[in-house]
Amino acid sequence: MVGRKHPVAHLASPDDMEHEFYEALQHGDLERLMAVWADDEEIACVHPGGPRLIGPRAIRASFEQLFANGAVPAQPVQVRRLVAGSTAVHSVVERLRVMTEEGPQTAWVQSTNVYLKTGLGWRLVVHHASPGSAAEPSEPAERSAVLH
Amino acid sequence: MVGRKHPVAHLASPDDMEHEFYEALQHGDLERLMAVWADDEEIACVHPGGPRLIGPRAIRASFEQLFANGAVPAQPVQVRRLVAGSTAVHSVVERLRVMTEEGPQTAWVQSTNVYLKTGLGWRLVVHHASPGSAAEPSEPAERSAVLH
Repeated sequence: MVGRKHPVAHLASPDDMEHEFYEALQHGDLERLMAVWADDEEIACVHPGGPRLIGPRAIRASFEQLFANGAVPAQPVQVRRLVAGSTAVHSVVERLRVMTEEGPQTAWVQSTNVYLKTGLGWRLVVHHASPGSAAEPSEPAERSAVLH
Repeated sequence: MVGRKHPVAHLASPDDMEHEFYEALQHGDLERLMAVWADDEEIACVHPGGPRLIGPRAIRASFEQLFANGAVPAQPVQVRRLVAGSTAVHSVVERLRVMTEEGPQTAWVQSTNVYLKTGLGWRLVVHHASPGSAAEPSEPAERSAVLH
C-alpha cells in the first residue's frame, strides 16, 4: 500500500535520519527502519554479538527476526559526530531498558552509524553495534566537529 | 626524529591505508599506526568488548597499552567495500591466531573501518571492532561496489 510507505524528506539531515532509525527500532516498524537505509548491495550491519550482514535482504531479515520478539527500546545518548561533506559518522552510546529476572535493568550498546548523502538524501550505509559496558559510560557533553 | 616518521603518500588509496593499518598492528608499530588516522578530535575507536574512545589521545593510549602486550596478529579477510566519492567504508572480518591453553586457536573479529579523503590524503576516522563468531564465517568472495 503506497499510503503505508514512509517517504523521507529529501533534505533531511543525518540527525533526522538517525531519529527515524531509533524511532523505528522503538516501534518495531520494519518499513520505517528499512527506509532509512541506502539502496545499495554493500550496506552493512552488525548486531551486538552477531555476524556481519551485507545487503538490504540480509539486513531486513535480521530486523524482521528481531522485531518478532518485540520492539527494541534503544535510546541514543552521547552522540559524537564527525561530518565531512557528504559523509556523517555518528558514534552513539545506546541505552536499553531490559527486563531481567532481577527486574528492569539498563544495558549499554556502542554503535557506529555511517550516513552518506545519496541522490535520495542522507541514508544509512552502516550500523555496527556491539555490547557496551554494564556501567553507565561517563563522558563530557556531546559535541560536533567538522573535518577539514 | 624526522627520519623515523611514517609519511603516507598523498595519493594512497583506502586499500593502501588499510594495508598500513594492519601491518602496523602486526608489527606493534604505534607511530605507523597513528599515521593512518585522520588528525581530528572526533576520530573514534572501539576495541572488541571495550569502551568507545574518541580523539587521537585516547586512541593512541589504547594502542600503546595493547602493544605493551605484544603485536596484534590480525589478518584482514573478507573485505567488503562501499565507496562513494571521498568516503570508503570497509567491512572487514579479521582472523587472529591466538595461543590458548589448548594450543593455537583462530579467533575472529568484525571490524568497520571508515576512511575519508582529507587534505592530506585518505585517512582512517573510525575503527570499530567487535568479537566475531568462533567458527569461520562463510561468505562469497570479496566484492566491491560504488554507491551512486
